[in-house]
Amino acid sequence: MNDDLILLGHGSGGALSHRLLDDLILPVLSDRSAEQNDAALLTIGQSRLAFTTDGYVVDPPLFPGGTIGSLAVHGTVNDLAMMGARPLWLSCALIIEEGLERQLLADILADLRRAADGAGVRVVTGDTKVVPRGKADRIFITTSGVGVIEHSLAIHGGGARPGDRIILSGTLGDHGMAVMAAREGLPLDGLRSDSAPLWSLVREMLAEAGEALHLLRDPTRGGVATTLKELARQSGLLFTIDEAALAVTPQVRGLCGILGLDPLYVANEGKLLACVAPEAAEAVLARMKRHPLGERAAIIGTVDEGEAGRVRMRTVVGGMRMVEMLAGEQLPRIC
Amino acid sequence: MNDDLILLGHGSGGALSHRLLDDLILPVLSDRSAEQNDAALLTIGQSRLAFTTDGYVVDPPLFPGGTIGSLAVHGTVNDLAMMGARPLWLSCALIIEEGLERQLLADILADLRRAADGAGVRVVTGDTKVVPRGKADRIFITTSGVGVIEHSLAIHGGGARPGDRIILSGTLGDHGMAVMAAREGLPLDGLRSDSAPLWSLVREMLAEAGEALHLLRDPTRGGVATTLKELARQSGLLFTIDEAALAVTPQVRGLCGILGLDPLYVANEGKLLACVAPEAAEAVLARMKRHPLGERAAIIGTVDEGEAGRVRMRTVVGGMRMVEMLAGEQLPRIC
Repeated sequence: MNDDLILLGHGSGGALSHRLLDDLILPVLSDRSAEQNDAALLTIGQSRLAFTTDGYVVDPPLFPGGTIGSLAVHGTVNDLAMMGARPLWLSCALIIEEGLERQLLADILADLRRAADGAGVRVVTGDTKVVPRGKADRIFITTSGVGVIEHSLAIHGGGARPGDRIILSGTLGDHGMAVMAAREGLPLDGLRSDSAPLWSLVREMLAEAGEALHLLRDPTRGGVATTLKELARQSGLLFTIDEAALAVTPQVRGLCGILGLDPLYVANEGKLLACVAPEAAEAVLARMKRHPLGERAAIIGTVDEGEAGRVRMRTVVGGMRMVEMLAGEQLPRIC
Repeated sequence: MNDDLILLGHGSGGALSHRLLDDLILPVLSDRSAEQNDAALLTIGQSRLAFTTDGYVVDPPLFPGGTIGSLAVHGTVNDLAMMGARPLWLSCALIIEEGLERQLLADILADLRRAADGAGVRVVTGDTKVVPRGKADRIFITTSGVGVIEHSLAIHGGGARPGDRIILSGTLGDHGMAVMAAREGLPLDGLRSDSAPLWSLVREMLAEAGEALHLLRDPTRGGVATTLKELARQSGLLFTIDEAALAVTPQVRGLCGILGLDPLYVANEGKLLACVAPEAAEAVLARMKRHPLGERAAIIGTVDEGEAGRVRMRTVVGGMRMVEMLAGEQLPRIC
């Protein structure tokens, strides 16, 4: 491995990404705590805002359940929602490869607009660049989002407390496997990205839980495993999850089996992990199950004192194994 | 020309860009007036904010006077400043081609950080994606910015009034020609990008002019000519400029001559155009000349009633000619 060059794995969201972050990216940020969360907190007058950005380079740009356009809306509004912020405004910057079919661009932009309307956000500013053929791959979209925090809770990635229940809002890996199947021309058999805007679900959870809601995070790049590992580190606690509580669709399980992938490391784009105080967990779970995006929500584990930053999993056969971060890159360009 | 494909000229900032905007991009924006200006206006509580985004794809990523990192800061903070907003926060999304030299990335990010510090803004959130070799060109950076408007003036691209004096803050085309020379390996002979953050100059102008400051815009893609044409259209007025009042360095004039380019269409990244009420124009100009970024500022023309949206130029030989928008793309990837 050449340490002098940037590798695909540096964009995986896993261990290599974290090293690049620590070495090169975090020193650029003016507030080093910001990069640990999905969005930065801004205070203006009496208002608390959340501000976030993500670049989308998904290949292919159209996949079952969405396009790079809707994904660029959902991913960014979800980053705001994970701070407990109501998404309000989006910016949208396009980098287009010369020769892109105009109709494809129109379809992507229409899907982006539909997704924004569905998420209740307004696309208020944009930019378009075109680069020569061969200098980009059809289309990349970077969206930034601004949302408002209308409560006094502090919801962030380091907020877990001992005793908290860990809730996952649904099935693992749907987005990653749908994109993978579309890219490789594999049979879809009902595979579909779960790409969706999570604010309306978060709003329900906030209303139910209030101060009992300690942490939210959407498991995107690196999947649930990598995300849990990040959260355990940020919170300085031990997370224990039950394999038996994890839901995976037969389609995702089947394709993962064929490709030798672990669904625990495959991205979602419409799911969330939450840490909730034990006394409120069942009520929050019940409320989530009444929401279309939380029908398959489950308590998948608990937060404990113990070895800080570790995640362990009770396997279905009764063993206990450590869960580590994604090491390299198993699925490039899924978002 | 194939109407079904996106062409390089669609990213030029000129006539083709405007057509793409009208046909495909504006329908996506929730507020169609936003795209006419450099930034969107947001109201939150008692505060007025400006919000903007730009993607940077400059080739090469290092050029005399800057890098894609500092350019990504200056371009975006200037879009805020052109709305009369004080730039406060930036987001930064990197799309990196696999195989980029780590040292080059470090240099670019260090330059980005220096530029942010110099402009008084904080980089508060970011994202990094890596795409396979050949799917991008080294590095693209998209920054978004949030600024605060601390006055009650309405400064926008449609704000010009009959009688206004048009002020240009310095020489034409410095950024575009420096990038061009660096890309083509031409002798630089003192060519240097003018990439710079303009807020401190705008603050002086606001202090001097108050309500007499009607319009601000930085002439980037498409140069001063295309920008004036946009502003004349937005304001619904006739702009008349004096060729003799336009400043061009000998280096820019020389290289433009060799390449057959018109400096009036070559981008700046550290200059601004302003429309100022006649009674305040001389005082504003004097104040600008005392600022390092306005030393070569000049009144270059006037705003008149007349054919709405037209720009005409009194040539040095005494003729009058119409100025049109950049038609295709004369200098791709200069920002």
